[in-house]
Amino acid sequence: MMYGSTAMGINREKFDEAFSEIKETVTRKRLNAKKDVKIADTDVNEDELKLLIKKFKELYKKEIKKDFPQNPSEQLWGSIGAVFGSWMAEKAVTYRKVEKIVGVKGTGVNIVQMVFGNKGNTSGTGVCFTRDPNTGVNVFYGDYLFNAQGEDVVAGIRTPIKLSEFAKKDPKAYKQLCDVRITLEKHYKDMQDLEFTVEEGKLYMLQCRTGKRSPAAAFRIAVDLVNERLITKDIAVSRIKASDIEGIFYPAIDKSQTAALKAAFIVQGIDAVPGAASGKVCFSAEKAEALAANKERAILVRKETSPEDVGGMHAAQGILTATGGKTSHAAVVARGWGKCCIVGCEAMSVDYAKKLFTANGITVKEGDYITLDGSNGNVYKGELKLIAPKPPAAYETIMKWVDEFRTMKVRTNADTPYDALYAKKLGAEGIGLCRTEHMFFDTEERILAIRQMIIADTVEARKIALKKLLPIQTKDFEGIFKAMDGYGVTVRLIDPPLHEFVPHDEAGQKALAKAAGVSFETVKQRIEKLHEANPMLGHRGCRLAITYPEILEMQVTAIITAACNVAKRGVKVMPEIMIPLVIDAKELKILEDLTRKTADEVIAKKGMTLKYLVGTMIETPRAAILADKIARVADFFSFGTNDLTQMTLGISRDDAGKFLPDYIDEHKAGIFKADPFQTLDQDGVGMLVKWAIEKGRAANPKLKIGICGEHGGDADSVKFCYKVGMDYVSASPFRVPIARLASAQAVLESKPKAAPQKKAATAGKKTPAKAADKKSAPAKKAPAKPAANKAASPAKRKPRQRPVPKRQVNNSDFERHYSLRIVSFF
Amino acid sequence: MMYGSTAMGINREKFDEAFSEIKETVTRKRLNAKKDVKIADTDVNEDELKLLIKKFKELYKKEIKKDFPQNPSEQLWGSIGAVFGSWMAEKAVTYRKVEKIVGVKGTGVNIVQMVFGNKGNTSGTGVCFTRDPNTGVNVFYGDYLFNAQGEDVVAGIRTPIKLSEFAKKDPKAYKQLCDVRITLEKHYKDMQDLEFTVEEGKLYMLQCRTGKRSPAAAFRIAVDLVNERLITKDIAVSRIKASDIEGIFYPAIDKSQTAALKAAFIVQGIDAVPGAASGKVCFSAEKAEALAANKERAILVRKETSPEDVGGMHAAQGILTATGGKTSHAAVVARGWGKCCIVGCEAMSVDYAKKLFTANGITVKEGDYITLDGSNGNVYKGELKLIAPKPPAAYETIMKWVDEFRTMKVRTNADTPYDALYAKKLGAEGIGLCRTEHMFFDTEERILAIRQMIIADTVEARKIALKKLLPIQTKDFEGIFKAMDGYGVTVRLIDPPLHEFVPHDEAGQKALAKAAGVSFETVKQRIEKLHEANPMLGHRGCRLAITYPEILEMQVTAIITAACNVAKRGVKVMPEIMIPLVIDAKELKILEDLTRKTADEVIAKKGMTLKYLVGTMIETPRAAILADKIARVADFFSFGTNDLTQMTLGISRDDAGKFLPDYIDEHKAGIFKADPFQTLDQDGVGMLVKWAIEKGRAANPKLKIGICGEHGGDADSVKFCYKVGMDYVSASPFRVPIARLASAQAVLESKPKAAPQKKAATAGKKTPAKAADKKSAPAKKAPAKPAANKAASPAKRKPRQRPVPKRQVNNSDFERHYSLRIVSFF
Repeated sequence: MMYGSTAMGINREKFDEAFSEIKETVTRKRLNAKKDVKIADTDVNEDELKLLIKKFKELYKKEIKKDFPQNPSEQLWGSIGAVFGSWMAEKAVTYRKVEKIVGVKGTGVNIVQMVFGNKGNTSGTGVCFTRDPNTGVNVFYGDYLFNAQGEDVVAGIRTPIKLSEFAKKDPKAYKQLCDVRITLEKHYKDMQDLEFTVEEGKLYMLQCRTGKRSPAAAFRIAVDLVNERLITKDIAVSRIKASDIEGIFYPAIDKSQTAALKAAFIVQGIDAVPGAASGKVCFSAEKAEALAANKERAILVRKETSPEDVGGMHAAQGILTATGGKTSHAAVVARGWGKCCIVGCEAMSVDYAKKLFTANGITVKEGDYITLDGSNGNVYKGELKLIAPKPPAAYETIMKWVDEFRTMKVRTNADTPYDALYAKKLGAEGIGLCRTEHMFFDTEERILAIRQMIIADTVEARKIALKKLLPIQTKDFEGIFKAMDGYGVTVRLIDPPLHEFVPHDEAGQKALAKAAGVSFETVKQRIEKLHEANPMLGHRGCRLAITYPEILEMQVTAIITAACNVAKRGVKVMPEIMIPLVIDAKELKILEDLTRKTADEVIAKKGMTLKYLVGTMIETPRAAILADKIARVADFFSFGTNDLTQMTLGISRDDAGKFLPDYIDEHKAGIFKADPFQTLDQDGVGMLVKWAIEKGRAANPKLKIGICGEHGGDADSVKFCYKVGMDYVSASPFRVPIARLASAQAVLESKPKAAPQKKAATAGKKTPAKAADKKSAPAKKAPAKPAANKAASPAKRKPRQRPVPKRQVNNSDFERHYSLRIVSFF
Repeated sequence: MMYGSTAMGINREKFDEAFSEIKETVTRKRLNAKKDVKIADTDVNEDELKLLIKKFKELYKKEIKKDFPQNPSEQLWGSIGAVFGSWMAEKAVTYRKVEKIVGVKGTGVNIVQMVFGNKGNTSGTGVCFTRDPNTGVNVFYGDYLFNAQGEDVVAGIRTPIKLSEFAKKDPKAYKQLCDVRITLEKHYKDMQDLEFTVEEGKLYMLQCRTGKRSPAAAFRIAVDLVNERLITKDIAVSRIKASDIEGIFYPAIDKSQTAALKAAFIVQGIDAVPGAASGKVCFSAEKAEALAANKERAILVRKETSPEDVGGMHAAQGILTATGGKTSHAAVVARGWGKCCIVGCEAMSVDYAKKLFTANGITVKEGDYITLDGSNGNVYKGELKLIAPKPPAAYETIMKWVDEFRTMKVRTNADTPYDALYAKKLGAEGIGLCRTEHMFFDTEERILAIRQMIIADTVEARKIALKKLLPIQTKDFEGIFKAMDGYGVTVRLIDPPLHEFVPHDEAGQKALAKAAGVSFETVKQRIEKLHEANPMLGHRGCRLAITYPEILEMQVTAIITAACNVAKRGVKVMPEIMIPLVIDAKELKILEDLTRKTADEVIAKKGMTLKYLVGTMIETPRAAILADKIARVADFFSFGTNDLTQMTLGISRDDAGKFLPDYIDEHKAGIFKADPFQTLDQDGVGMLVKWAIEKGRAANPKLKIGICGEHGGDADSVKFCYKVGMDYVSASPFRVPIARLASAQAVLESKPKAAPQKKAATAGKKTPAKAADKKSAPAKKAPAKPAANKAASPAKRKPRQRPVPKRQVNNSDFERHYSLRIVSFF
């Protein structure tokens, strides 16, 4: 079956159908089973299996126009070819894309002797983790199937027994497994994912690799391994991935809505990956991807998942499968992403053709909303209220270590006191970007005032409108400064093109006309005049302040007035006024002068002393190029890498959807390794950043330098920011912990590479685990790639030397190894 | 009067009104003149002048609330203050803007003793040029007024006599003037503009400066001076300005339209500046500026012009005045710009209030079209057919010298065989930019085919449309290659966003639906999908070829097929295929491979050998930054500085109108010295260009480098291109000679500065005029600024030492000098 489907490309479902047919007709008849009784694979007897083999061979011949090869050598070569061919299979390509695996030239093939787990009830196969991959708790965790081959476990077709049960039923084999568990963890200094087969009571290890784990488990295991003196703190910190932090901040279902939960409950499955998610039900990976592309949340519902589905799984908010256990494909893959996943929901029947599933008498169609609770396996109708979960205890420990290693400050991009306080809780040490314009949309009063300011056609009319905005902005800034007591707050002056604020509908324009005391026609004309062909490159940023200096005056007055007001109340306030979209030192000088003049007047009027900074965003290539001149008029630089990326690449984020995906897709153009708007383009944009920092610091050694683009929350980009010598990064509140982690990892990665032993010794200084560290060091290099790990499989017992068996049953054995190769890759 | 108006700010018209009133009432009555007899200023007798003085004093007191000062010292200080104050007067600011005079801190005041030209008929005043400033011919040229002060000549209020008449009437004074003419030309080695006064038979030189001249005269004078061994060829070439070339390429009236000319004739005035122009009549400088801002051609019609009008004069296509001679304000200013100008059209009466003029019974209202012929002073109704004039003989001589000095090639941006041939005539040595998409708009058939290609939603549908385009493009390229026989032709693949080609009106969309065989709705949807937020940064350039490689294949097939076809007919063809908007070497490599594959297939099919190049535009900052990597896959770089400027500065040309003027205006923000879209921003964009050339050449020493942005036709930018080591520049056909000139001047300017004598000797090697050259060398430094020239006035006769006179008449004398100071500045 696997040879036919995977090596020769026959649709796998055709084999499944043939098996189902025998089970439903021959086996059910023989067992005289009722319609609602399920026929298990193991119910099928030898004769029926022989019949199945016949059917399979017929199917094979029909599809391939050749007899199924009986020569093992021929089968071997067919399988080897299939492994090499699998490199460019869509599922492999998608997987590499999702996992950002690039620059790898191809795959290799290992050929090893077979052992058999399907030689009766003294045989079996299992998959296990040396620690619980969901919680990270130090317990042996896994599944076992008697009289089965590995494929049966990972494919999730048969529901396996737990290791505890296996221990009871075959204590001798289990004892061998427990010994291997300890040996391997000590060797690799990390939690391992093991695949094994018991052949007639004897244990054979098939594979060992670093185990995938839930984000929460990643923290727990890292902390535990330090406590167990297997690794040092720096290794623990290095092992945490940005996605682990994302994972533990995924929302959970709000359990207080008891009645709603009870009413919405549909069915319970196996809680494979914690977290919660809601979205539209869909039954294919393609549909999930389509929904995601359309910015809709999808829940992918499948009977079972396979590597073909990885694209859709990644696109979905959550995954629900009817079959499989905690180590099935769906569970393992979703866990790696910290993505909510429920498996083995056997009470659920999925109808792909009708695009619906039913469970407990409830029918859910494609497009209906459901909510998954990955923490208990519950499935609910509709969209339930979700709340952010509390990070695990180990998270705090890791983050404490992170802050010990970290040298770069982490700020946040926040526009409201609420966001500011939330970010502070997550470790933000100030605000790197407070976008004043976001405050304008809060109330009808505010939006009318800003609109009145925009359509003003005289300085006087504009000043009247600005007077209305002044107290509003002042109050907003007071709230932010108070929330950030003791920390710096960078306020960016108005930045977007003005037409973004004006109403484009008649009703809105009429309301504005009334408020501004001008005719509807005037409002319409003024709004028309604001239209721009390329607003991104238009009249925005500090260009507005050059044209309308009174806007800058109002904003600076509001910022400094607010700062003085809260300072009087004992708040430690450090305002930093940031001028956006600068292209020239003279331009900045004009605005810096006006800013200081306005600010100093306010301060003098208040009769206080107040320290404040005036700086600029570096977000045009010209500003980066002329950074030395600009630095002489700036207290700080903040890299606005969103715009800088747009201009350096000549790509509008809003329009990139038409071609950028092809540029990133390795198997289309593959020009970029990652989306340059997510991960900083170090070759191009990064070059400008580096240049600007070098020139800027040379001209003004006191220059404070940070980043406030989206890249400030991207781990790879944060590491780059460290390398080029920034003082801080600023990220959205949710990504502040990622920025802290990446910042610490950047320090660790930049340490000079010593010989492994030596390095471990140095790293070990901080911990009493020197001896253990010395041993652990070589392992650090090993587990990077599953294939490498597998190649160096440490299973000490050599498989028995014996020729490839000639029995028919060998086919599936062969396939077992072939499939393991594929599975191990995924 | 002048003291009152210019120094004290009283409206000058009020003085004019008072004078008119006395002329019309008292003088006319005394002379018993009929209504249609004009009363001249000189008709007014002494008593009437005394009456006028009384009226002027009353007017002064009424306006200033103080008596007119009788103390000369007080008048002097008032005048000095006015001169200093004039620096920031609107007219001065506008003039500096127009002439691109920047970085000058202020003005100075010279106080000299007075001489009087209005002491009866043995006195007088004149303005003259040592050679004819219109044609450059070596004849003495100027105006003289007996019994007058200089202001009367330059203001154009009284119509002066020619120098030839002056020579007859006062041969003694004229002889003195002729001696001065020769002395000054020998000293300054250039044509001089002289102002003089004869007081009771004795000549006094008031001022001497390098004379403004028409573009044609600039060529003639430069060549003549070389022939007269006063200067060397390199100095001759250095003295020609880019605007001189523009000037000689201004259109002239097509004289073959005899009947039309006769029918349209209105009136004849004085042919002040040659050239021809047509446009809408307007009567104020503001209106002319408004029309120009609205992209309409204006003809400024004034009684007389004054420095207040320079903005409008510059904005207008041509200038027509009722009074004044060839040295009046209007004529001098317009000549400097090579702008068609007719003055002294006394038969014309202008009514500012009614906004019309009448002449020979014909009434022309504001907004009506007229055509001016500056070569004969004729004014015509309507818009007459204009033709490009033949450049003067001296132009060819100068350009021959230009090409001797020049090392950088000059190509042209041309999309049609017509443009290509025209550019070749003007000296283009190949095409640097052939925009294929411009060919698409030629016929309905073409535009339908390209639109069909764009709205295709499958590769197959697209290929059907492309098949239609292939023969059309092939034919176009054959025409271009034939026109450019022996020269390289750089063809840029399709560049603009596709939505620029599609119809946005219902009728057009329906026609397209019919042609493409799809529904109107489909067409509408597809066009909607093409909309982009920032098309400049969107799906365009080579991104189209990445998404739709079949477009590239069609275009390359067309280019190479055309090249093979014409090569077979004996044309020497050198196609260079240019891939636009590249941001990455891998992107270019993909397209370069596809281009070569497609091209080589065509060549192989044709059974020929054909050399072609594949290169790229450098027009994104990222391409410039990564130039070393990109150079390894490119045969050539062509800097697309239009886009590079847009992206480096983050300024969309289409939207810059709202703020860029303030950035350029020295008296507003004054951030840029020139419009960065006209003259390359050397600090910012130039830095990227320099970097890209250095990195590009280092990585690929064979790399051919040029520029094809608008800057390739701007003199300052061309000089920059030379400095950074480009192989060629490419300009629009009309600007090819400017590019040649600037390229030669760049070589001359880059020569190491030696001591003047030594340099002249070296420069002189190429000419037999060594001795003369040695003498001429120091002059090169002198005439740069009129003010400097004036300060070093070489008039040998010292004005008589005498105190400032006490007579009433002194006021106007004072004013004379005051006004000279102003006039000399303008």
